[in-house]
Amino acid sequence: MKMSELVGERFREKPADCVVESHSLMIRGGYIKYVAAGIYTQLPPLRKITRKIEQIIKEEMDALGGQEVLFPVVLPGSLWAESGRYDSVGPELMRMYDRNKVPMVLGMTHEEAAVQLVREYGRSGSKYPFMIYQIQTKFRDEPRPRAGLIRVREFTMKDAYSFHISQEDMELFYDRCLKAYQRIFTRVGIGEVAVVVSDSGMMGGSIAHEFMLLTPAGEDSIAVCPACGYKANVETAESITKNDPGPAEELKLVKTPGVQTIEDVCAFFSVPVEKTCKAVVYQKKRTGELICVFLRGDMAVNETKVRNIIGEDIIPAVLTEDSGLYAGSIGPFKLSNKIVALFDRSLQNLNSIICGANAQEHHYTGLNLSRDCGAPDFFDFARISEEAVCPGCGKPTIVLSKGIEVGNIFQLGTKYTQAMNMQIIDQENEPVYPLMGCYGIGVGRLAASVCQVRRDEFGPVWPITIAPWQVHICCLRADEPEVSACGGELYRAMLEEKLEVIYDDRSVSAGVMFSDADLLGVPIRVIVSPRNIKENCVEIVTRDKRISKKVGIESGILEVRALIKKLTAEIEDYSIS
Amino acid sequence: MKMSELVGERFREKPADCVVESHSLMIRGGYIKYVAAGIYTQLPPLRKITRKIEQIIKEEMDALGGQEVLFPVVLPGSLWAESGRYDSVGPELMRMYDRNKVPMVLGMTHEEAAVQLVREYGRSGSKYPFMIYQIQTKFRDEPRPRAGLIRVREFTMKDAYSFHISQEDMELFYDRCLKAYQRIFTRVGIGEVAVVVSDSGMMGGSIAHEFMLLTPAGEDSIAVCPACGYKANVETAESITKNDPGPAEELKLVKTPGVQTIEDVCAFFSVPVEKTCKAVVYQKKRTGELICVFLRGDMAVNETKVRNIIGEDIIPAVLTEDSGLYAGSIGPFKLSNKIVALFDRSLQNLNSIICGANAQEHHYTGLNLSRDCGAPDFFDFARISEEAVCPGCGKPTIVLSKGIEVGNIFQLGTKYTQAMNMQIIDQENEPVYPLMGCYGIGVGRLAASVCQVRRDEFGPVWPITIAPWQVHICCLRADEPEVSACGGELYRAMLEEKLEVIYDDRSVSAGVMFSDADLLGVPIRVIVSPRNIKENCVEIVTRDKRISKKVGIESGILEVRALIKKLTAEIEDYSIS
Repeated sequence: MKMSELVGERFREKPADCVVESHSLMIRGGYIKYVAAGIYTQLPPLRKITRKIEQIIKEEMDALGGQEVLFPVVLPGSLWAESGRYDSVGPELMRMYDRNKVPMVLGMTHEEAAVQLVREYGRSGSKYPFMIYQIQTKFRDEPRPRAGLIRVREFTMKDAYSFHISQEDMELFYDRCLKAYQRIFTRVGIGEVAVVVSDSGMMGGSIAHEFMLLTPAGEDSIAVCPACGYKANVETAESITKNDPGPAEELKLVKTPGVQTIEDVCAFFSVPVEKTCKAVVYQKKRTGELICVFLRGDMAVNETKVRNIIGEDIIPAVLTEDSGLYAGSIGPFKLSNKIVALFDRSLQNLNSIICGANAQEHHYTGLNLSRDCGAPDFFDFARISEEAVCPGCGKPTIVLSKGIEVGNIFQLGTKYTQAMNMQIIDQENEPVYPLMGCYGIGVGRLAASVCQVRRDEFGPVWPITIAPWQVHICCLRADEPEVSACGGELYRAMLEEKLEVIYDDRSVSAGVMFSDADLLGVPIRVIVSPRNIKENCVEIVTRDKRISKKVGIESGILEVRALIKKLTAEIEDYSIS
Repeated sequence: MKMSELVGERFREKPADCVVESHSLMIRGGYIKYVAAGIYTQLPPLRKITRKIEQIIKEEMDALGGQEVLFPVVLPGSLWAESGRYDSVGPELMRMYDRNKVPMVLGMTHEEAAVQLVREYGRSGSKYPFMIYQIQTKFRDEPRPRAGLIRVREFTMKDAYSFHISQEDMELFYDRCLKAYQRIFTRVGIGEVAVVVSDSGMMGGSIAHEFMLLTPAGEDSIAVCPACGYKANVETAESITKNDPGPAEELKLVKTPGVQTIEDVCAFFSVPVEKTCKAVVYQKKRTGELICVFLRGDMAVNETKVRNIIGEDIIPAVLTEDSGLYAGSIGPFKLSNKIVALFDRSLQNLNSIICGANAQEHHYTGLNLSRDCGAPDFFDFARISEEAVCPGCGKPTIVLSKGIEVGNIFQLGTKYTQAMNMQIIDQENEPVYPLMGCYGIGVGRLAASVCQVRRDEFGPVWPITIAPWQVHICCLRADEPEVSACGGELYRAMLEEKLEVIYDDRSVSAGVMFSDADLLGVPIRVIVSPRNIKENCVEIVTRDKRISKKVGIESGILEVRALIKKLTAEIEDYSIS
């Protein structure tokens, strides 16, 4: 490919609406073109990258014995109704009607389609285990697309579905798949991706892992323990607090004019925050019923945990006058029995706490939940925080990091096979529902994530395994016949040797040529210039600036070949963490 | 791949709802699974086939200098409004609203997205010509999906868009693309595909060609002249009639009780059908205005031609009492001037015709259009028929054939660039709109079409270039250790040599094994059996039955390799028609 023919534009100015660096670089480098919120066209350099990523993923899936299929993008709503998700999933599921008024949806994941495909095939136990996968467009009507390809509405995804006859078999396969995922991330050049325990969310099932690329640009928070290596998404990380129970006190109603926040309470009573009780009020989305979560004053609610424990969706409550709740004065004692009270473990062993009194500008001191509130049950509703106790090793060492989720895997159990009545009918007794695992990687997000962590101030530094081209020939002063002849000859020879090469022989300044090359991020650059030709050599420079040398023109290709081999080996040898 | 692990089921019974053989075979062979009307999942054997077809297409597009991109499946309605197609395209365009009530559509073709992508890039004349293409899912809400993958609603398509600065350049490129298409069809094994002049339909533009695979299972009709090689879709083929003008007569009103049809007219007046005038009434879809097409009694209306000439969509008319039209008695003389009268060339030089009198049960004889109806203009509104005059050589030799459209190419001109204001701004004077070409191939339909014409009564006979596997090892009596050892060894050796091989070592009868193999249609079959082993040989049989021989076990792989080479060469050497 000649640079002068490459479709797309490159420019220096950072687009005003880009807050994440990879987003900016992908716009500036002619990788993506905005079409609508969260919807982009991939330009040729990115399409080359995503093709390579797809190929790596395909090889690893095939090596697991995965069989490639292709599910439809447009699915009948009735199929999603079989699993219950036509109703249970919110507006992120794109719903529409076809010309015959039949409800259709755009696939955002394909568990239902997978079960529909193999429901008959899987009747015989001898077929198990098996895995099918596809690489296909998905659509998810995200409320807040952001950061270019990192959170989009339309994306290409590899999604795989495995089917098993026993929990043991599923776990064995799940573990093999986890390792295949680590190989995939290593091979695309980000072997540092962390495996993190995660919440299974709308997918159902119990055990799930996310593959997190730690970067401040990420929107997921991960709890990491540097001491023991524990890693979990904060959505799922267990929150452990160490409490000083303190002495029991008498329950006392106190008038507290102007006291609204936990800080006000601490100041008014001159107590540490660990002695206070905070209330956070939600409503069940379905019924509007009020839910009050009580937790220690310094803790925050993890809404995912609340959802998982009560088993339905919640929204922040709107407090009406007849709710009997007064913002700033809500407490567990004498709480209206129309309200569901939930207690976090951070309050479990405290002998005496200060809390709202369910009356305006009044608080109680000396509340003892076991004594005064009928000894409620305590659950884990709190969000793990910086310096919290590590659930792995028990030390107060938790660090919170930001990360991009570049892949996820789930043990789904029988959620879908049971709902959709996929049965193994070898046995004569009870119906046996096969177990499922599912395994996803977003291709575009992965490309953007690599860009986010493999770049410098001038552009991406693509790992050679996924770079749009391996070699970038920069021909400075191509208007001089000798220079253009040398560059052209090198280009032809490299094409002949099947090297992936882009050739820039435009009549532009060295500044423009190099800044465009930086934006394309090709790992090996070969510079042909009048001065180099005078010395009968070319300059070979790697995009990451580790290597820069002059070699004789005649050995240029040999050197490039060796360098490709070296750079590839460096990536593939990256030890799997 | 082992046959015992291949996901999908094969069976003998022809599904009741399959009227086209390739549809039946693709269901019976475990290639596709029905999900909804015109929506299928591709099972592993078909996904392998479509991957290979996609690769062949990609190679040919790349060889043309095409640059791969990826457009979104979900496009904003506003983008289609820019070209006017948001309103002009009917319900086959799937429309929906996102969570913010923004109108969106599913891409059924991507001219708008292509122009949006390169509108800025194409400002400079130095960038031309260029071509971008994608291989992506499309959705078209067909009213009547049929024949499996031949007419679906969701499909994978390669669509390419070229941009040019002059008509000459577009024509040159168009011709190169036409040849690339012929290479594609040759390489997938159907070099006999005919290039046919076609109507450009909703795409706009003037010159267009379709690539037609002639088969009775097709739903397109093609006019073919065996004498001169002329080929055109009947939708666009020029209709030529040779008339005997006959003597002029006096215009005479005749009472014609019970005369309704053209047959009635011929019988009542004892005249040949060529002396009669037929009326077919339509309404403009937009306004409801009545249109009456008059043509010779033996001709049929080609509605596409009517649409193209009046420039808008038409529907069959509903005749109300106040229309002044009486079915069976409609004629051009004294026709209400509220009705648009159109005259086909088949009436042009007739001195005397018989036609309806616009009064119940009355006809005119001796009508002369030039004399009595103000010498109207005549256009080509008729459908070409069997034995019609060939527009190529003028002989009455036209034969109508059925065909499947496996590809199409269009010269779009400036229709989209002008509507969407894509301008070349090098010039200082008038704005210059680049010219576009567009080029489509449906991948799934192509696979099904090959199946339709490359099969026998037992299953598909896949060309080796797109076959799911190259070699199928059938191990008869794999329960005998010696047999299974031989088959297993052959399988391992072939895998090692990177042959694409499927290995059947199931404990099933030879009948089941061979009928499954027939359904998979793998071109080369290697049979390992107790008898063969006794003779120290294996049988090598091609799926098309042209070759069947026994070779020594030790030379099996060498023979297979040679056969792969031979079969591949046969396909790729197929001379381009």
